[in-house]
Amino acid sequence: MESDPVSYSTQRGFQIYSAGLRGERPAIPISPDALEQRARDLLPPEVYDFVAGGAGSGETIQANREAFRRWRIVPRVLCRVARRDLRMALFGTTLSAPVLLAPIGTLSIVHPDAEPAVARAAAALGVPIVLSGLSSVSLEEVAQAAPEATRWFQLYWSPNLDLTLSLAARAEKAGYSAIVVTLDAMLMGWRERDLQNGYLPSLRGVGGASHFADPVFRSLLARSPEEDRDAAVRQLAKVFSNPDLCWDDLEALRRQTRLPILLKSILHPEDAVRAVERGMDGVIVSNHGGRQIDGSIASLEALPEIVRAVDGRVPVLFDSGIRRGSDAIKALALGAQAVLLGRPYVWGLAAAGEAGVREVVLNFLADLDTTLGLCGCATCAELNPELLRRDPK
Amino acid sequence: MESDPVSYSTQRGFQIYSAGLRGERPAIPISPDALEQRARDLLPPEVYDFVAGGAGSGETIQANREAFRRWRIVPRVLCRVARRDLRMALFGTTLSAPVLLAPIGTLSIVHPDAEPAVARAAAALGVPIVLSGLSSVSLEEVAQAAPEATRWFQLYWSPNLDLTLSLAARAEKAGYSAIVVTLDAMLMGWRERDLQNGYLPSLRGVGGASHFADPVFRSLLARSPEEDRDAAVRQLAKVFSNPDLCWDDLEALRRQTRLPILLKSILHPEDAVRAVERGMDGVIVSNHGGRQIDGSIASLEALPEIVRAVDGRVPVLFDSGIRRGSDAIKALALGAQAVLLGRPYVWGLAAAGEAGVREVVLNFLADLDTTLGLCGCATCAELNPELLRRDPK
Amino acid sequence: MESDPVSYSTQRGFQIYSAGLRGERPAIPISPDALEQRARDLLPPEVYDFVAGGAGSGETIQANREAFRRWRIVPRVLCRVARRDLRMALFGTTLSAPVLLAPIGTLSIVHPDAEPAVARAAAALGVPIVLSGLSSVSLEEVAQAAPEATRWFQLYWSPNLDLTLSLAARAEKAGYSAIVVTLDAMLMGWRERDLQNGYLPSLRGVGGASHFADPVFRSLLARSPEEDRDAAVRQLAKVFSNPDLCWDDLEALRRQTRLPILLKSILHPEDAVRAVERGMDGVIVSNHGGRQIDGSIASLEALPEIVRAVDGRVPVLFDSGIRRGSDAIKALALGAQAVLLGRPYVWGLAAAGEAGVREVVLNFLADLDTTLGLCGCATCAELNPELLRRDPK
Amino acid sequence: MESDPVSYSTQRGFQIYSAGLRGERPAIPISPDALEQRARDLLPPEVYDFVAGGAGSGETIQANREAFRRWRIVPRVLCRVARRDLRMALFGTTLSAPVLLAPIGTLSIVHPDAEPAVARAAAALGVPIVLSGLSSVSLEEVAQAAPEATRWFQLYWSPNLDLTLSLAARAEKAGYSAIVVTLDAMLMGWRERDLQNGYLPSLRGVGGASHFADPVFRSLLARSPEEDRDAAVRQLAKVFSNPDLCWDDLEALRRQTRLPILLKSILHPEDAVRAVERGMDGVIVSNHGGRQIDGSIASLEALPEIVRAVDGRVPVLFDSGIRRGSDAIKALALGAQAVLLGRPYVWGLAAAGEAGVREVVLNFLADLDTTLGLCGCATCAELNPELLRRDPK
Repeated sequence: MESDPVSYSTQRGFQIYSAGLRGERPAIPISPDALEQRARDLLPPEVYDFVAGGAGSGETIQANREAFRRWRIVPRVLCRVARRDLRMALFGTTLSAPVLLAPIGTLSIVHPDAEPAVARAAAALGVPIVLSGLSSVSLEEVAQAAPEATRWFQLYWSPNLDLTLSLAARAEKAGYSAIVVTLDAMLMGWRERDLQNGYLPSLRGVGGASHFADPVFRSLLARSPEEDRDAAVRQLAKVFSNPDLCWDDLEALRRQTRLPILLKSILHPEDAVRAVERGMDGVIVSNHGGRQIDGSIASLEALPEIVRAVDGRVPVLFDSGIRRGSDAIKALALGAQAVLLGRPYVWGLAAAGEAGVREVVLNFLADLDTTLGLCGCATCAELNPELLRRDPK
Repeated sequence: MESDPVSYSTQRGFQIYSAGLRGERPAIPISPDALEQRARDLLPPEVYDFVAGGAGSGETIQANREAFRRWRIVPRVLCRVARRDLRMALFGTTLSAPVLLAPIGTLSIVHPDAEPAVARAAAALGVPIVLSGLSSVSLEEVAQAAPEATRWFQLYWSPNLDLTLSLAARAEKAGYSAIVVTLDAMLMGWRERDLQNGYLPSLRGVGGASHFADPVFRSLLARSPEEDRDAAVRQLAKVFSNPDLCWDDLEALRRQTRLPILLKSILHPEDAVRAVERGMDGVIVSNHGGRQIDGSIASLEALPEIVRAVDGRVPVLFDSGIRRGSDAIKALALGAQAVLLGRPYVWGLAAAGEAGVREVVLNFLADLDTTLGLCGCATCAELNPELLRRDPK
Repeated sequence: MESDPVSYSTQRGFQIYSAGLRGERPAIPISPDALEQRARDLLPPEVYDFVAGGAGSGETIQANREAFRRWRIVPRVLCRVARRDLRMALFGTTLSAPVLLAPIGTLSIVHPDAEPAVARAAAALGVPIVLSGLSSVSLEEVAQAAPEATRWFQLYWSPNLDLTLSLAARAEKAGYSAIVVTLDAMLMGWRERDLQNGYLPSLRGVGGASHFADPVFRSLLARSPEEDRDAAVRQLAKVFSNPDLCWDDLEALRRQTRLPILLKSILHPEDAVRAVERGMDGVIVSNHGGRQIDGSIASLEALPEIVRAVDGRVPVLFDSGIRRGSDAIKALALGAQAVLLGRPYVWGLAAAGEAGVREVVLNFLADLDTTLGLCGCATCAELNPELLRRDPK
Repeated sequence: MESDPVSYSTQRGFQIYSAGLRGERPAIPISPDALEQRARDLLPPEVYDFVAGGAGSGETIQANREAFRRWRIVPRVLCRVARRDLRMALFGTTLSAPVLLAPIGTLSIVHPDAEPAVARAAAALGVPIVLSGLSSVSLEEVAQAAPEATRWFQLYWSPNLDLTLSLAARAEKAGYSAIVVTLDAMLMGWRERDLQNGYLPSLRGVGGASHFADPVFRSLLARSPEEDRDAAVRQLAKVFSNPDLCWDDLEALRRQTRLPILLKSILHPEDAVRAVERGMDGVIVSNHGGRQIDGSIASLEALPEIVRAVDGRVPVLFDSGIRRGSDAIKALALGAQAVLLGRPYVWGLAAAGEAGVREVVLNFLADLDTTLGLCGCATCAELNPELLRRDPK
């Protein structure tokens, strides 16, 4: 589905204010902070902590947000912005906006409709979903639930190469149109809140549905996951990810698939350059939403150097910290082709299932569309660093 | 009415302290923050939110305030400042101080006396009011209510050029002495609090009185606004502002009127230069009090470059964030000819109607006058960047 | 009285901890913040506000404190600091430490023993008191109450030159050993808290005792202050200070007195240079404790440039924001010859009268002495900018 | 005991999450802040204040923490980090990690098992304990309690040289393998909370056990400490430390012992260079956890210059402010060979005695190990300044 240019902000705002005239209030809170609070009120504390929390003291989460405040927008006036068009082409597909839903695993802890609900909401709005490699519903079932969605598959690279390649092959077969390899989760981050709660969903058998359905994975088990869940969970912990992965290992996947491969978790420009040199099709600047290293560089602080280093050879996507339209504007102006929206849609899912995700994304797009126009731009392609000023503080 | 030099601070302070001796307290709180709190206590929450709030997270509002804290005043001593004179000439009129009341629409949501009360208070103190193009009382009625006030008219540029020119012509005829064209409200800002409250006054028929009285506007309606308010409101939403406006469009107004035209919402020096080149008579540096873009450059941060770019060819006025005398001192020292005071007078209106506005402005002028003298200056013309030091933080 | 070298810190700490062994607690809180809170609990709110408050939003008060945090001490080790000596000579007098009690007027609002109690405490500890020109007890009575104290007199310069010179002559006659001319109070600061409270002590007849006793002042009255206090208060408001003062006016005082004259309220290096050129004997860097201009440069930020400009020709003293020993260390290391301690002793006075002032000053000296030694210095003369590092934040 | 490479993080996290599956929660809080709060709840207020507090306003404590936030980690990907090894050699001993337990005295105020419990926990984990020169249990008894621990002895240098040398000789004899001379406690810091509480453990006879057992010290007493504790305490206060110590004095110790001598409390690069020139074997960058000078340079801010100045001639250790694994990563990347962990283990001791210390250190090592791997490093030797980026704020 393609977006109708010039629609989000005007229609959305008018719709909400008109409902207000009838005494109706938005189904989910408009403000990202209030939305998170709503989800917090609804979820068991350990589930909220798991989604909201990060490594250590949460300093990286905070840094991700602060980094946006350090760039200020200098809008232009009288630029003819009535006909705005958020659409953008990526790997041959036209997205309705430069926005993807970030890979987040084990969503059934948040809502029983889990990843399929997210995929359907994504489809409805024309934005891709990047399905987590630790989804609570298998990649095939998600595909079936939302066949029309643009779906990418996020891959955790197993020390068992056959398993890795099997997961990728299944994703390709099921119509996923890109593979995202996450590189900063070869070890579990030291997450104080989760440790305090003694709560790790994947150890409780949530997440891993795609693995449990995998023939290679099943061949490693004495009994099927349906018969002995505990053994499957223990096996998953063993083969889930490979901390000994190195650059050469990527070639096996490159050879197998014709799908675009993107490396996620790139924060150093030299790693971005290497990705290009190794034939990767894109990089995603990300610190995993602050979940892995406490005290990591803010994702947005890493972006400009990586954009310079990649120099247009492949798309650079941006992840970690996006909450509002102006955040996306800033990342795009600094050279990202698109941004990944993460926790906010999980809060929407918690608050109201599929409809909640749709509301969150719609509000986000309306905010983005409004801010784009107010910057004096009619398309995201017009965004550039000249629109930003470093905060002199 | 002209100001009596050397009056504000001494007289005002003495008056308040003397009243204190008799056990009397100021009619409205002296501190801008306490005044806002007073208004908050008095107003319905959605009305308070509408006036106080801004785009998104309110980051621009905060940035506007922080920008003032980054400049520090380095006062001089022994400068003979007994006879201070705040008066300044602007477009052939002598104002009692380099202060205007900023255009703020739909004031009847705050107090039934609305814009006429503000205009009368402005007249009493010799400062101009810039009447909003979305006032709750028509521009003619405001003129009638305060004929002696120096009145400027703020114009929202309609996609219907006849309507635009009609509004401007009526303002000129009604004795308004300048036209201020606002350029950052062609789209509604994404205001989370208002969306949450489902509250937009103009959709409820408040504001737009000047449109409803306009012959061109009325010609667009099947029935008059008096007969069918809802239809008029819907029509207003359509023709209210033109996001496709461009620089060439300004010529129509330039040709029609001999009044000074100022462009408001200028944040980029190149736009300021263009304004001069297009024959505009002044620019107003403003980010709409943080109501349009979340994450915009602070208005004060934008001022110095614009002053340099304009280089004295037209007056540069300053808007967004002014709360106290020292704020005005800083903006004037950085090259603004005058400042616009916004939300504080609305809180005064909420607290005590016309008298409240008068109190707010009087206190502001007294504070300005005191601070001017303590800086070692007897007139605002003596203020210059040498009096400021960038905070080294 | 001279200080005994190597005494403050060791003796004072031991004394307090030993008392602790016996279950005794310090007579007044050790921490300046807790002390202020104690005073706040004891004083009428408007009195606390008057002493604690400042111009406008209190931003300058805050800036004064933040400025200290921007300098960090880099101590040296193994420097033989057992025999420390805080004494310093100033205008021919040896002070027990480079510390003076700042001029603060109308102290009877805080404690009935007022300025005489402060002067006696100062005498007991060998630090000078700078008596305010608006003291609640006349300069002669203060001299009589503490004849052995080193006393300086702070002069508010009247538009009536005879009165100004009379006050100075009386101070000289009464054994005051320096004249401090305050230059930033020619106009009352716009103090929001005091205005809100309608509370100005001098309008209530507190402060001005030295004026009421002055023959020139009395000659301006129809009836004596004893007979008609209100008329005297009104007259005082008229002749209290002269906002038209200029550099040439200082000569009259320079000719009359052989006492050292210091100009207080210097924040700009050019004004400091002028003071030297006009034959002044010292300058006091000060922003009046943040009471006059909201948004003024922090006093400490102004110090280094003034020290450079004065270049050792006259002593530079420092005022505004001193709370702890490390504050004094920083000001001294940046080139001040001595520091003025202000509000803390007033809180001590509020809490426990003369004994409270003594405790505050003793604690301050002990803290200063400790910190000096821990810096690796045995005398304040060894302090220099090399001991400080600008905080890189 | 040596550490098993590749163990801490994976094992520790798995262990905690698995216990969580059984409904068990960690014995002590995982987060350092929550742990401190737990200890605060358990300890008498004056004891908590004594351990947690610092000089003056606590500004140095705060600065120590802020300094870490100013460095951001830029991790690398695809680096083969499955086999991590935290071990490092220092003065001929292999430590299981570059971590030592900092010298903290009078631990019996926190828990009756005091220093012996800490030493046993240190032994269990293969990290050295630096025993405080003011321990509540004598150095010989601690040695006896944990003979297998790597033990260093922290020496307070007495004005009585015989006593100083006797303490050092006894430490050497009891198997301590290095001497740490603390240089910033020749005078007691001005600690407002302790003064307010009138609480100094050493004046109450806690701490000083090594002195009370010393033949030189006992020869200074009329009656033995067992007979007259008060007299011994008073004598200890006199001979405890020597503020007149200078560089030449160090030679006596250098001549006596063949143990490595490290100077602790170095913050200035010139002092570090001197230490090398005087034949010292290492320096410890430290501001005593913020307990001595209020407004001191943050320890981490001092580190890089000292590393440059020492230039690899002796090991540079780091102390003050370490709370989490990422803190250690940053100090090590900036050139420290090892870090000292202080208050956190005291909170562990308060919460659960020896087991509490063990838990705290294990969690710290697991966090360190995780973060190391996520940085893309398999050993601490790979850490270097290229992994850090100065926060641009």
